[in-house]
Amino acid sequence: MSAAPIVPPTRVLAVASHEGKKRSSRGNHTGYRHWTGTKATAQEISDLYRGLKDNYINDFDMMLSGYIPGAEGVLAVGEIAKELKAANEQQPGHFFWVLDPVMGDNGNLYVAADVVPAYKSLLAYADLIIPNQFEAELLSGVKITDMKSLAAAIHAFHKNHRVPHVIITSVNISSPDIPAGHLCVVGSTMTSTGQARLFKTVFPSIDCYFCGTGDMFGALVTVRMREAAAAAASVMGCASWVSGDAVAAVDLPLARATEKVLASMHEVLTHTKDAMQGVVDRTLAAMTQDERQGDKQKMLAGKKAAELQLVRNLDCLRLPQKRIEVVPF
Amino acid sequence: MSAAPIVPPTRVLAVASHEGKKRSSRGNHTGYRHWTGTKATAQEISDLYRGLKDNYINDFDMMLSGYIPGAEGVLAVGEIAKELKAANEQQPGHFFWVLDPVMGDNGNLYVAADVVPAYKSLLAYADLIIPNQFEAELLSGVKITDMKSLAAAIHAFHKNHRVPHVIITSVNISSPDIPAGHLCVVGSTMTSTGQARLFKTVFPSIDCYFCGTGDMFGALVTVRMREAAAAAASVMGCASWVSGDAVAAVDLPLARATEKVLASMHEVLTHTKDAMQGVVDRTLAAMTQDERQGDKQKMLAGKKAAELQLVRNLDCLRLPQKRIEVVPF
Repeated sequence: MSAAPIVPPTRVLAVASHEGKKRSSRGNHTGYRHWTGTKATAQEISDLYRGLKDNYINDFDMMLSGYIPGAEGVLAVGEIAKELKAANEQQPGHFFWVLDPVMGDNGNLYVAADVVPAYKSLLAYADLIIPNQFEAELLSGVKITDMKSLAAAIHAFHKNHRVPHVIITSVNISSPDIPAGHLCVVGSTMTSTGQARLFKTVFPSIDCYFCGTGDMFGALVTVRMREAAAAAASVMGCASWVSGDAVAAVDLPLARATEKVLASMHEVLTHTKDAMQGVVDRTLAAMTQDERQGDKQKMLAGKKAAELQLVRNLDCLRLPQKRIEVVPF
Repeated sequence: MSAAPIVPPTRVLAVASHEGKKRSSRGNHTGYRHWTGTKATAQEISDLYRGLKDNYINDFDMMLSGYIPGAEGVLAVGEIAKELKAANEQQPGHFFWVLDPVMGDNGNLYVAADVVPAYKSLLAYADLIIPNQFEAELLSGVKITDMKSLAAAIHAFHKNHRVPHVIITSVNISSPDIPAGHLCVVGSTMTSTGQARLFKTVFPSIDCYFCGTGDMFGALVTVRMREAAAAAASVMGCASWVSGDAVAAVDLPLARATEKVLASMHEVLTHTKDAMQGVVDRTLAAMTQDERQGDKQKMLAGKKAAELQLVRNLDCLRLPQKRIEVVPF
């Protein structure tokens, strides 16, 4: 009657935090001017995990960590990852940490400066990291200006930090390989000797502001990575799901996962864009005459329309029809 | 390729809170001995809603409220419901509040005593309430001992509080209508003159402890009620989705929703029960030799196994195959 599940049942611990204060900087992560709520402190993160552990419900197969605004919180999440890795030491491939080192974009940092060294200290425990170009520069120490330095940054993650899987989720450089109006995503799974196996995909960008794309990428790549690893013979029994050296870059589980994630994202972003004007119109229609004239109100209606329409596009997540293919780097 | 969505896109505001302290009473709602986390205060609930409103993302079609341990929190949620009702006053049927008055079970109260009058004061704003038998007694003032007093309690909700839709989610009385080992669920949508239209269903109970059944019922009935109302000609344009007086009890949208919800629950509970021993075995196997001997550890393994297996049984939520039918009261 309905589609098969995309992955075998998985227990994923997802950790992210939001700040409680209104922030005036350019880089407000939520995309809204006003926001409220409470920030999970490092202590609260640790306490919540302890609560799970005390009840023996910490048998996670995977962990996905996202936005954490302070170094203490980042380190608290790192302690959880270390503990779960240690608990599964005797069973290679039984725990996998997807680390999204959310720090900034396009040259702007939107977390405290001490978050950068905190993430650096944890790279050795991550199985897959998914920085954007700016975050990759911050963590690798390599300034990315062309395809060569992009490859060097990924090499640095493999060589210096032993990060097995890397995806640079948005590459913004001038290169003959990337036509105007196109985006590039690059990934690699290291070999047993720490060499990169680079693949890339270049696709037309959707010229529009969206809110939530980073979190969507992280969530989807977590399940798709496990699905792709499960589909590859014997990979799930290997530490960090690293394929044997004979497997070429474009045949990696990471490559399959990247393709599926980008296909889903393309579909959801397209549907969200198509629905945007309707959302703006309905939001403005619900305002009073006075409110409707305000620039702030118009901006807020636009922000609301930029929220990814996930729930009404579940089929795009489960069974994307769009075909996206990675190619050798 | 996949199943049609069960409802048209809906924006639902779901509100519930958990306490931060370990509680020693019998009635620990989470079902665990240890638990941690922070309790949302009334102020935080109000602040969160204000944050949504300031950003014009408070255009909810429905609200589902669940466990809230203190009267202040309950009243804060009530204020949100009142505001959303007032905002939709000119558009009958455009906002619908499903109130799950979580207070206790089987004679035990597991919230503060002042929560009872707080909920009473809000009944007039609810569209559908889903108390269990004990909660129905507390709110209606009618002691439920047989089918007649059960009907009287529902009448009281319609007559005294103008609650349009009521489902008593678990009835625990001796009655020739309810054979041993069976459960009874009773519902009613009032007529234009406040008369009850009662339906019931009696089905074999699954003799097992589960954790999360109340929250599951609330979540499912919220979407199924909207689906059933949308399927009934013109009901969604009526205040509180109340069917015309000509519609018989067993033909109500509430009856259709109840059937679907109970079918899904039957399937998920059955699958959860079938998987329980495996969960216990795996949990104990992951413990140290010493831990495994402890009564507390055994109990915790059982609690964990009692968690409803929702994610791996999504098809039971979307497309239950089980047929459950309501009959006249």
